[in-house]
Amino acid sequence: MTIRQAVASFLVAIVVCVAVRAQTADPLPSWNNGTVKQSIVSFVTAVTSADNPRFVQPAERIAVFANDGTLWVEQPMYTQLQFALARVRALAPSHPEWKTQMPFSAVIKGDDKAFEESGEDGLAQVVFATHTGMTPDVFAKEVDDWIASARHPRFDRRYTELAYQPMLELLAYVRANGFKTYIITGGTVEFVRAWSERVYGIPPEQVVGTSFVTKYSMANGQPTLTREPDVDVVDDGPGKPVAIQQYIGRRPIFAFGNSDGDQQMLEWTAGRTGAKFVALVHHTDGEREYAYDRTSHVGRLDKALDEATRGKWTVVDMKRDWARIFTFEPTN
Amino acid sequence: MTIRQAVASFLVAIVVCVAVRAQTADPLPSWNNGTVKQSIVSFVTAVTSADNPRFVQPAERIAVFANDGTLWVEQPMYTQLQFALARVRALAPSHPEWKTQMPFSAVIKGDDKAFEESGEDGLAQVVFATHTGMTPDVFAKEVDDWIASARHPRFDRRYTELAYQPMLELLAYVRANGFKTYIITGGTVEFVRAWSERVYGIPPEQVVGTSFVTKYSMANGQPTLTREPDVDVVDDGPGKPVAIQQYIGRRPIFAFGNSDGDQQMLEWTAGRTGAKFVALVHHTDGEREYAYDRTSHVGRLDKALDEATRGKWTVVDMKRDWARIFTFEPTN
Repeated sequence: MTIRQAVASFLVAIVVCVAVRAQTADPLPSWNNGTVKQSIVSFVTAVTSADNPRFVQPAERIAVFANDGTLWVEQPMYTQLQFALARVRALAPSHPEWKTQMPFSAVIKGDDKAFEESGEDGLAQVVFATHTGMTPDVFAKEVDDWIASARHPRFDRRYTELAYQPMLELLAYVRANGFKTYIITGGTVEFVRAWSERVYGIPPEQVVGTSFVTKYSMANGQPTLTREPDVDVVDDGPGKPVAIQQYIGRRPIFAFGNSDGDQQMLEWTAGRTGAKFVALVHHTDGEREYAYDRTSHVGRLDKALDEATRGKWTVVDMKRDWARIFTFEPTN
Repeated sequence: MTIRQAVASFLVAIVVCVAVRAQTADPLPSWNNGTVKQSIVSFVTAVTSADNPRFVQPAERIAVFANDGTLWVEQPMYTQLQFALARVRALAPSHPEWKTQMPFSAVIKGDDKAFEESGEDGLAQVVFATHTGMTPDVFAKEVDDWIASARHPRFDRRYTELAYQPMLELLAYVRANGFKTYIITGGTVEFVRAWSERVYGIPPEQVVGTSFVTKYSMANGQPTLTREPDVDVVDDGPGKPVAIQQYIGRRPIFAFGNSDGDQQMLEWTAGRTGAKFVALVHHTDGEREYAYDRTSHVGRLDKALDEATRGKWTVVDMKRDWARIFTFEPTN
């Protein structure tokens, strides 16, 4: 062998190695090896293999994800509610009447118990006061500003850093396999749209959520949309499959949720003829994140967990299945 | 020059010719050369040229189109209404009570005048009886079956052949330039979704329209969506910009309509900061298609035409600007 031939062989060997490595590189490095990870990879491989009986055309590869508790942390309180409370406190100086007016007075004083006792009606008042009355653009800016600086009480990180790394990998993995990824959130749609593209790679038009009645008018010669203090779409529970039909018009083949509010979306996906993958994130890791299910006020997972057993849905055991939860954790 | 060199030169010349031809091939051959065609091409060129001050990022290139009268024929009656009337006649044998019950009796007898006199209420009864009570899948199948065989009374062609060839070219042209094309229709969304991908290349999730209240239930252990006889979203007039915000969450940069029901969608696009293109199709060709505007019951174009003058929107004069309207016309 001449030196030239030897170099050539060496280069070929490198190319082969790189190619093999590219083929075998793990697309889900933050998922522990086990039946759950294997079932995800098997499903994606099957529906993308043209010669597989479970093959699904790219256009039909609709993947839907709940947001709170599925893609990012929802404890100890939904992030959107943290935002609403922060906005009440920020707006308080221009609302002196709030000092003596429930539920605002409780929020301003930080009296969580009194605020909780104000119930659904108190919550609605806080949400309407902080989420409506402005244009969608102004609201998006308020969310942007808040989320750029607000910090989670336990992790002392920005909320967008509390997206689950295994789910970010999963989103990228299914997209790389021709899936179109959607968020189907019980939260309000424009709260999530403000940062979903940057954090999840999901553009605004693929975020479906609860929404407010919106009015069109001409204000000083400018066409204007105004968010009204009245709920339009309730994208939770049975509202999720309904919204999927109204907004997407296709039945998903891949669905991920984490709470009872996702049950009907998962059932709807599970009932599809042909290939489908249906999964729940089960919060089992009190050390690295939170452990909660049947009795939690936030993200309760009770009936949907029974349904998962009955329907043989995949249940992700966070403690067992996720090697790493956040990007800021030390890697092992 | 050797023969070999001559052949090589000849081949290079061919390659150059093909390349030049590919660059200069007209993407809008059914549009007559003139200011309208020029303004479309100038706009698309500007917003896709990175060094142009009017450049728009691909993700923001949202293009919205009305359907009836903008993308296909709407005279002498909206196609969806033709479908509804045909369905009444098809269902009549299983509804003997309709024989004596207005407005159904008028439709069955073909008494257009009596049906018209039944007004909005009569129309609603016919639409609910033919568009609701079933699942979205069953409805889509009914539309599919009908549209595969029904023929337009004047042109004796299938309705899907009555898509305007210049607009099909325009849809393809803007998509080839990174635009995402949406239909924003006053018609009901699932009627259009049944064939929009095949005819326009627009997938179901990019069709926004009027919709019915839809209910989720478990029927014999199967998750089921049922279309209810009640309107949910009214995607017409001011409802169009509202629906654009709710469904897409981005402000369009390119909007095409043809009637007063599109005025607010066009205003909303025209009011955008930065580059935008706003246009109306004006039906001026009674010979090749139909001529109608300010006094038409179908697709009335009156206030929006005034607004087009005031706002300097582009007005497509069908007779002047379209060299060819349908694919089945003889080419010149």
